[in-house]
Amino acid sequence: MKASILTIGTEICIGQIVNSNAATIGAKLTQLGISVIANSSIPDNLPQIVPEIRRLGDSSDLLIITGGLGPTQDDITKTALCQFFECEMIFEDSVYQTIDYLFKSKGKTVTERNRAQAYIPAKAVALPNLSGTAPGLLFESNGKMIVALPGVPYEMEYIYENSLKAKIKSVLENSKSEIELHKTIRTYGIFESYLADLIGNSEDIPNLSGLAYLPSANGVRLRLTVQSRDFVSAEIKINEAIAYLELRIGKYIQSYDESPMIERISKLLIMSGKTVALAESCTAGLLGGELTRLAGSSSFFLGGFMTYSNDSKAKLLGIDSAIIDEHGAVSEEVAELMAKNVRVIFKSDIGISITGIAGPDGGTDSKPVGTVWFGLASQERVLSFKQIFPGNRDAIRNRAVFYALNMLNNLLLEK
Amino acid sequence: MKASILTIGTEICIGQIVNSNAATIGAKLTQLGISVIANSSIPDNLPQIVPEIRRLGDSSDLLIITGGLGPTQDDITKTALCQFFECEMIFEDSVYQTIDYLFKSKGKTVTERNRAQAYIPAKAVALPNLSGTAPGLLFESNGKMIVALPGVPYEMEYIYENSLKAKIKSVLENSKSEIELHKTIRTYGIFESYLADLIGNSEDIPNLSGLAYLPSANGVRLRLTVQSRDFVSAEIKINEAIAYLELRIGKYIQSYDESPMIERISKLLIMSGKTVALAESCTAGLLGGELTRLAGSSSFFLGGFMTYSNDSKAKLLGIDSAIIDEHGAVSEEVAELMAKNVRVIFKSDIGISITGIAGPDGGTDSKPVGTVWFGLASQERVLSFKQIFPGNRDAIRNRAVFYALNMLNNLLLEK
Repeated sequence: MKASILTIGTEICIGQIVNSNAATIGAKLTQLGISVIANSSIPDNLPQIVPEIRRLGDSSDLLIITGGLGPTQDDITKTALCQFFECEMIFEDSVYQTIDYLFKSKGKTVTERNRAQAYIPAKAVALPNLSGTAPGLLFESNGKMIVALPGVPYEMEYIYENSLKAKIKSVLENSKSEIELHKTIRTYGIFESYLADLIGNSEDIPNLSGLAYLPSANGVRLRLTVQSRDFVSAEIKINEAIAYLELRIGKYIQSYDESPMIERISKLLIMSGKTVALAESCTAGLLGGELTRLAGSSSFFLGGFMTYSNDSKAKLLGIDSAIIDEHGAVSEEVAELMAKNVRVIFKSDIGISITGIAGPDGGTDSKPVGTVWFGLASQERVLSFKQIFPGNRDAIRNRAVFYALNMLNNLLLEK
Repeated sequence: MKASILTIGTEICIGQIVNSNAATIGAKLTQLGISVIANSSIPDNLPQIVPEIRRLGDSSDLLIITGGLGPTQDDITKTALCQFFECEMIFEDSVYQTIDYLFKSKGKTVTERNRAQAYIPAKAVALPNLSGTAPGLLFESNGKMIVALPGVPYEMEYIYENSLKAKIKSVLENSKSEIELHKTIRTYGIFESYLADLIGNSEDIPNLSGLAYLPSANGVRLRLTVQSRDFVSAEIKINEAIAYLELRIGKYIQSYDESPMIERISKLLIMSGKTVALAESCTAGLLGGELTRLAGSSSFFLGGFMTYSNDSKAKLLGIDSAIIDEHGAVSEEVAELMAKNVRVIFKSDIGISITGIAGPDGGTDSKPVGTVWFGLASQERVLSFKQIFPGNRDAIRNRAVFYALNMLNNLLLEK
């Protein structure tokens, strides 16, 4: 089954917001084995919307539209759909009841503007939205589906998860079309072109219909694609391809999924029962924010210090000012003492420190912008690592957080 | 001038990554007064790429393509461009010299795979890339421009800023086409539909060619658009429209630009010479990370505590355990003591605390998930605020950071 995504909103075209909805929907459809073949964004401009619905609708079995369903004048998706399907708007009482309920639950009464959201194109079926005032709209004709969803991400997700997904799955099962399965392998510590040389011609890899290289600041990801009649046979095919790759690039493989590092580290920490405390300087809490991103983090994260000033490093972490003066705040000695002392103060199993020069100012010849020292203290020993990261302030701080997570991951895996 | 953006990469369609490149380019072109009329993403699939270049090229004066210029087999943009422009690849020595330089500067020698990146379509002019191995490619014909840039964000930006931008500006100046200017007004504390009722019919607002409502978790943004012959006259037009809106919604306006809150707060703190210290519980460093995002933050951010466990709140912040036991860690009393004590410990002018239940577990009837207490201590007084945020763990923590920034902003502006 082929799908397209159409995002309506000038804010996307002019770059005022990043199109996260298209990525969310793309990922959800991909999970069902559907091939997403196009992804288009156009402004809130009626003369463009109608032909774009026609173009994408013609080439796909499923078209998902988001945006332009709100209560204000710039919301014109419903008008466009009425033009496209040549139908009128009708008042849908079940939609109105939901809107009324949402307002009453907040102690408000429905405004005329929101009441108008209960009008939907006559050829559409309303998909209930209990998280906002705009319903989803489902059109079916000639074995194809066109669906409009609100642009507010959690409303869009609400409708997808609660009604649309089941509908798509049932159509998919009846269609007996091939499914497409993607898997990602994360590599670390090797250039894209060297990796490609080790792997060789992608056509020699068994079963694959596609192999893509996705370089990033945190390593190159490989995306493997197979097509098959169902998920079970697709899994078997893709595992054969992975086995082929393991022989060639095994030592650079960091993980076999798309899941962020923090997911794996959280699991390792919870399983091992180990606790962590932090002393962050140039990242000033970013690592703490990341370590506590997932539920359950209170079982391993005890807390930490944001020691941004030298004074706070000395006072809070009990580091001799003379050592900071002698070696500088960004140094092996200070990184090790930060990690060691924060571990003692919090009585944690592991202490981690980050101290660096995120820039744009503050660099010297011997310690250029991007220089970051990391400390890693456990009961047995205190280690330190130095990196010089490229990029701007944001990039340096994000790379430092990722490096620290990688360091913690290796400690937990005793790599 | 009308522009379109084409992003080539299966990873965009399947939602493996969010299309930040399209937003970056869209924003840059918008800054120049260019109207971005379409934004399309398609997979690494040759039979789709060539017609898509034709479709978008036909409707625009400028088409910017990103992605698919790398050294691996899945990179087929150059092949597509040769098909589209009916030309061969030629070896471009200046490109090779750059690649050679990049490898030598890292102590490596050029691989065959990277040497092949010096082949470019014969009808293209290479745009130098000193941040990676793929050059940009510029095609001009019939007064239109088609440009291909690498997909790696900093390489794309490097080429845009260092050569492409000047080229587009010179074409724009000669074309004498109308420019489009957008401005954003941020509002806070009012629903989208109420705001629309206060504003009334957007056609009554002087000079505007467009008004859009952009609701989000952190308030509704209004985007105003005008068209004019140059930026000076466009500014005058848009300011008349803003004056009209101020009369109607003045008290909900939070700022007159798109710039993130942290930019304004950083300026206010630097100008006032005030210093800040933090005690973060459920956000565990996210506020510290945000406060230090911009250069110059070391002049106002002294540091802080991530007091994730109750034990650390008591010990590090000197809060009587009996108070925590009596009122709970998420309480007015504890929030105020956290802010007050962290201010004293760091000798800062302002102390801020956040303590809440980010979920998904830990909620009770009286303190449901989403309950967050904020403390704000200055020399004169200690204030506290309570919010119950909707959404999941991520949303609650991000809303808490935004709320704390808003609280700090109000204190600095003595609102």
